Amino acid sequence: MALMNFKGRNIYYEVNGTGTPILILNGIMMSTKSWEPFLKSFTHQNQLVRLDFIDQGQSDKLENSEYTQSIQVDIIEALLKELKISKINIVGISYGGEVAILFAIKHPELVERLVLFNTTPYTSPWLQEIGRQWNAIGKLRDGATYYKATIPVIYSPSYYASKLDWMKKREAFLIPIFSNPVFLDAMERLTNSAESYDARNGLDQISAPTLIVAADEDYLTPIANQKELHQAIKNSELVILPGVGHASMYEVPLLFVSLVLGFINTLETKYQI
Amino acid sequence: MALMNFKGRNIYYEVNGTGTPILILNGIMMSTKSWEPFLKSFTHQNQLVRLDFIDQGQSDKLENSEYTQSIQVDIIEALLKELKISKINIVGISYGGEVAILFAIKHPELVERLVLFNTTPYTSPWLQEIGRQWNAIGKLRDGATYYKATIPVIYSPSYYASKLDWMKKREAFLIPIFSNPVFLDAMERLTNSAESYDARNGLDQISAPTLIVAADEDYLTPIANQKELHQAIKNSELVILPGVGHASMYEVPLLFVSLVLGFINTLETKYQI
Amino acid sequence: MALMNFKGRNIYYEVNGTGTPILILNGIMMSTKSWEPFLKSFTHQNQLVRLDFIDQGQSDKLENSEYTQSIQVDIIEALLKELKISKINIVGISYGGEVAILFAIKHPELVERLVLFNTTPYTSPWLQEIGRQWNAIGKLRDGATYYKATIPVIYSPSYYASKLDWMKKREAFLIPIFSNPVFLDAMERLTNSAESYDARNGLDQISAPTLIVAADEDYLTPIANQKELHQAIKNSELVILPGVGHASMYEVPLLFVSLVLGFINTLETKYQI
Amino acid sequence: MALMNFKGRNIYYEVNGTGTPILILNGIMMSTKSWEPFLKSFTHQNQLVRLDFIDQGQSDKLENSEYTQSIQVDIIEALLKELKISKINIVGISYGGEVAILFAIKHPELVERLVLFNTTPYTSPWLQEIGRQWNAIGKLRDGATYYKATIPVIYSPSYYASKLDWMKKREAFLIPIFSNPVFLDAMERLTNSAESYDARNGLDQISAPTLIVAADEDYLTPIANQKELHQAIKNSELVILPGVGHASMYEVPLLFVSLVLGFINTLETKYQI
Repeated sequence: MALMNFKGRNIYYEVNGTGTPILILNGIMMSTKSWEPFLKSFTHQNQLVRLDFIDQGQSDKLENSEYTQSIQVDIIEALLKELKISKINIVGISYGGEVAILFAIKHPELVERLVLFNTTPYTSPWLQEIGRQWNAIGKLRDGATYYKATIPVIYSPSYYASKLDWMKKREAFLIPIFSNPVFLDAMERLTNSAESYDARNGLDQISAPTLIVAADEDYLTPIANQKELHQAIKNSELVILPGVGHASMYEVPLLFVSLVLGFINTLETKYQI
Repeated sequence: MALMNFKGRNIYYEVNGTGTPILILNGIMMSTKSWEPFLKSFTHQNQLVRLDFIDQGQSDKLENSEYTQSIQVDIIEALLKELKISKINIVGISYGGEVAILFAIKHPELVERLVLFNTTPYTSPWLQEIGRQWNAIGKLRDGATYYKATIPVIYSPSYYASKLDWMKKREAFLIPIFSNPVFLDAMERLTNSAESYDARNGLDQISAPTLIVAADEDYLTPIANQKELHQAIKNSELVILPGVGHASMYEVPLLFVSLVLGFINTLETKYQI
Repeated sequence: MALMNFKGRNIYYEVNGTGTPILILNGIMMSTKSWEPFLKSFTHQNQLVRLDFIDQGQSDKLENSEYTQSIQVDIIEALLKELKISKINIVGISYGGEVAILFAIKHPELVERLVLFNTTPYTSPWLQEIGRQWNAIGKLRDGATYYKATIPVIYSPSYYASKLDWMKKREAFLIPIFSNPVFLDAMERLTNSAESYDARNGLDQISAPTLIVAADEDYLTPIANQKELHQAIKNSELVILPGVGHASMYEVPLLFVSLVLGFINTLETKYQI
Repeated sequence: MALMNFKGRNIYYEVNGTGTPILILNGIMMSTKSWEPFLKSFTHQNQLVRLDFIDQGQSDKLENSEYTQSIQVDIIEALLKELKISKINIVGISYGGEVAILFAIKHPELVERLVLFNTTPYTSPWLQEIGRQWNAIGKLRDGATYYKATIPVIYSPSYYASKLDWMKKREAFLIPIFSNPVFLDAMERLTNSAESYDARNGLDQISAPTLIVAADEDYLTPIANQKELHQAIKNSELVILPGVGHASMYEVPLLFVSLVLGFINTLETKYQI
């Protein structure tokens, strides 16, 4: 664990293991800690780089400010410089996938391969409304309601039903966090930073081999989003996870890890059939 | 328009047209008025019977009480008696589809054919959480937040994006209603009345030819729900509406009317191939 | 039943019932007789017009000749003139759907509404190979092999398994027909008449309200074909039949009839939501 | 390359590379040679074991005999003994996936992890008909017709259209092979060996972590087959390849290799979420 100074703010990051490096980018509510269950597998043959985006986890907050995801893109660029990594594999989920796309468009030469889980090419008017709902409820400082508005919808109904006990524990764990004004304000800024996200015009700039993973019970970034990515990103492959929701890394952890490591560690990306 | 007395409460209903009768049952936020756009087509060759469930539209409220959907089932039975209708075709969407199923299980002899749009066989733990979220937000008496929590999610993202102006008008129209404590309390009771809904054990009692219509961007009652209905209801047919959300009657009105009238008015239900 | 003279050839057709007229167009192996099971329902409120295309059923053969589907389009035009029908609803399945599309492009003013089952906008290279396979096997004059090559593939695996007895009877019935050189030569000409079919450039000319019905176990005209039709035909609606194959009218007859009659007999096609 | 004697017959096999061993099992028309394009990637960190089943490639033919897939299961068991491998990862596609399943049921202690592409739990009546069609056409000794009957159907229509030149070359290459009576007789025996295949009662015996890969334009072993496998094999994961046909390893080679290596080389299969 370490801190990087970015324009006067601390950015928290972790580097573990050795081997072909992988940078993994958090979803909006996640942090470096969210990846702990996967650490052993991800560092078995690879170096894993994690970071908390600005306003996430142990990175600094950016109180009373407005920003877009381009700040997160710049943070990643700075971090790679700090770590002296000239080219890296990037894995992103949801918000992290959006930042990964923006980064790959701006710095194609820094990206080896790209893996995008539950990612949309743009924030649709519909998704903007979901974000505004979260923000409106966040202002109430009522953790229980914030939980109900944000958490069930990111899991598939079948997973939710099969893990009820786990969900109840998670609810108990999250409600205090979701009642914390500092967290809620940061969440609002993060949500706002994605509101204008639209990478559609730049997708043809992405040249890295890209794996796009869609989940067919993902209600926040439905499968049509990933099909659009697949059509626009030239060297891309598309896989669908049936019966899985937006939080795919937790619903099907073995598949999540297998897809990431399989795509990144495979020697050749072109095959002479 | 007319009122029926049900155990001391007024139930509002309307009967229009002549021909083979069709009873259409509202979704939870709907009322008899919601069907006005379809009135001309539905009454072209059929008699259309509409009603507001207890706590809906112009029917009486049931303040300070708890009930299940069985009260709505009894209201329908009373209404058919009042109208001297011995057998009827029933169309239900969402909450109305659930009541239609419960009615068809309890009174199979009264049901000619059944059409179920966006209907689940039971309220899953996941859907219960959605209901609890709605209730929690309802208690805030904040129409704008209630709108954000309940309305975008019932439309498919693509429909929402293509009808932004219409959505904005709808938002302006709904916010005052969604700020009204009387409406919000009624919505809470209606939501609660469905919380324990589970018709799975009775589905094999339904003998009427049944058309089940699923929409593949319906996030509240996902397609897996309708597949379960199709497997359990013996004389059932299943159709999928691609790119359509939970409010299918508004997203694809021509398909909605065509499916209802086609299934109900077709002379024969068995074909010797 | 009646015969129409078309450029010196007899075209067999039938007109039954009274009411809003519906012209139903056969799939490649079908004939006017194939629709007998649906006759009662189709003529309940409508006039049903059927015909055998050239080289089909009781219409004349066109020995030793090559033609495209435009000849079938001209036959329909002639038949409507003969019947003094100035505008008609057209239903087509597969080959019949292709002819319906070509007719609607050439004579938009003659088409009231259009219903297309299991229809492709063009004969893909892949489908051309299937056609060449059928022709190659047809030349063997071996009915049993022709049956194996053409029939199982048009049904969904689940339907086939559930109707094994029926399939065996059908095989016994069809093998003599499939051994008849006159039938096989006609089939070859019909197959060839569709080989160059490509309506993609004309689809935007179709103005009639159009219902497109796809079946998700249709291997000859997969669902991607119907999605392409839906995107290109402006006033079109798309419905998917899950677990159904290419011969949808036989696999789900009640749905087939309901979809046709519902779409054609509904009073209004535009709804003010 | 090497030969193993199995009950007086030569079985051809190849072992390449070092590392965690992977046994890859051919589809019915494939041979050890079919995997050459993947050799470099598969042997980068793993030992790859390939074999030709009896009646395939360079293994001996079993003229004038009838057998089931259990002979292939016994050949694998013998080969593992020969190679002194006590536990192995098995990858199978189609026919090879069926043999992999039968092997995993009979010898669960020998199977580390299992990857099944385009595999069915049983030969359905529908698939039996396809097999009989192939056999009937095989008896004609006409390579061009055998090609048309067997090859286009194993690719998705979109892949076929996009690779027309490649397909034409492949056709030219395959027709002489498909005209060879020795090959055709072997194909008939192999096809017959799968006709009675039904592993459904044994699937709950499989304990190895299993990855099931379905392709949604696979017409020979449709997606419903893989869903059935997923439900019955306890430690299984399901992934869907959209727009891909039965020959998934050739249509999406990078995905094929990534899925295999990712699933097999991932350190942990259980994650504490």
